[in-house]
Amino acid sequence: MHAQQMIKTHPHVRGNTNDVLIHCVEACFDCEQACIACSDACLGENMVQQLTQCIRLNLDCADACRAAGSLASRRTGSNELTLRTMLEACALACRTCGDECESHAQQHEHCAVCAEACRDCERLCHEAAQTITPTRQ
Amino acid sequence: MHAQQMIKTHPHVRGNTNDVLIHCVEACFDCEQACIACSDACLGENMVQQLTQCIRLNLDCADACRAAGSLASRRTGSNELTLRTMLEACALACRTCGDECESHAQQHEHCAVCAEACRDCERLCHEAAQTITPTRQ
Amino acid sequence: MHAQQMIKTHPHVRGNTNDVLIHCVEACFDCEQACIACSDACLGENMVQQLTQCIRLNLDCADACRAAGSLASRRTGSNELTLRTMLEACALACRTCGDECESHAQQHEHCAVCAEACRDCERLCHEAAQTITPTRQ
Amino acid sequence: MHAQQMIKTHPHVRGNTNDVLIHCVEACFDCEQACIACSDACLGENMVQQLTQCIRLNLDCADACRAAGSLASRRTGSNELTLRTMLEACALACRTCGDECESHAQQHEHCAVCAEACRDCERLCHEAAQTITPTRQ
Repeated sequence: MHAQQMIKTHPHVRGNTNDVLIHCVEACFDCEQACIACSDACLGENMVQQLTQCIRLNLDCADACRAAGSLASRRTGSNELTLRTMLEACALACRTCGDECESHAQQHEHCAVCAEACRDCERLCHEAAQTITPTRQ
Repeated sequence: MHAQQMIKTHPHVRGNTNDVLIHCVEACFDCEQACIACSDACLGENMVQQLTQCIRLNLDCADACRAAGSLASRRTGSNELTLRTMLEACALACRTCGDECESHAQQHEHCAVCAEACRDCERLCHEAAQTITPTRQ
Repeated sequence: MHAQQMIKTHPHVRGNTNDVLIHCVEACFDCEQACIACSDACLGENMVQQLTQCIRLNLDCADACRAAGSLASRRTGSNELTLRTMLEACALACRTCGDECESHAQQHEHCAVCAEACRDCERLCHEAAQTITPTRQ
Repeated sequence: MHAQQMIKTHPHVRGNTNDVLIHCVEACFDCEQACIACSDACLGENMVQQLTQCIRLNLDCADACRAAGSLASRRTGSNELTLRTMLEACALACRTCGDECESHAQQHEHCAVCAEACRDCERLCHEAAQTITPTRQ
């Protein structure tokens, strides 16, 4: 991904990078894709009826990741409190989806892969949220 | 919008509608569009340099509204804690964006209209969040 | 929705509105929501295994509507050829999804409502595409 | 990214991968992020007034990439004609945005990086579109 280069060349960032936040951005877009793909893979399984909760959580998680990854990509002006809150909402969506995927990771390899993407994203959203200090609003 | 009809005909909803949540869904999609349009209208103003914070907040708010509106549209299975948290994150994004738009509503009519969409969405996200009782997770 | 007011107050639009394009924007956001809701309603049906193609088309259509509605909301600068092509891609997604939903509209009321939203959006995307004359690129 | 693993473990894909389409998915999510970041970096430049067309094209391109990357991630059922049309719409959005970014890549390093992401995505969308044979619709 070009995320690191993009953020490091931002006019307000130069020489003052928040590497955790950059890794968090990469994880959000990765997890969004993984969750879209996992929802579709679950939909293609013969036992789809037992996977409806997983599909629901995949789709919610993809939406949360997209929002968090987009907000965390911006550095002009400031919106710290919203960003931190969104990162925490995304971490929660990832935890819930990762737990569900993990619970049937043995039967469905795509759920095992998706659980891994969710875990990475959950951890990085938490870590990134802690680096953000809302100074106003 | 068809939101009300769509949600009322959901197999898990029939006869047990949460009207506040339905209105919240409508407000989220409306506010997403308003914020996309306002960011672009600000970009078209001669004084765009003074409107960069507004554009930033518009884009963040649009992303938050899209995520909240999508999550709030789903009724299969459950993801209550994530939904409530996302509605609260969206309310915060709307408040921040609405405050900014309101501060120059006199000069830019599009900011006045957008502030109104943000206020409606903020209020409905708060009200809808209160109707959601996380029962597990 | 505030779409009409938002676009009419854009600095590059005043007095020169494209009403078909405004109605198309409204239809895109409406259809996006309807398709997200229909995919989830299908997921909640006991016969979900027979509805997987419908869910797939719903999700694709929601993504196309979101992109088309966002592009069509912008008036600063120009991107006509891309906009027209995206409106046509969205019309196709709506037609395909609307056909599928219509084919089981008798059994599932949510599919009947969603088919209606898809038909409206398909028609308005076609009509709006015809009003756009790429002048360069 | 986990995209490759996710798609290779899909129940309808096993042993029959379309590697070009997988690389296209990765490029779409990468380019979406790059365009979101570039629009925000342009917004942070002192000369933002001269970059409004670039911001417009960045935002349109991000929306197109997100839609194309999401559609191309799905393998259950079929929606080939819509997928191919969306990949072509995305390639066009990438070309237009890449041309603009390239035209001021000398002054703004973020535009140089974004142009590269757009070129990769444009090429892969074209290549992937050619691998898709609509068999019905």
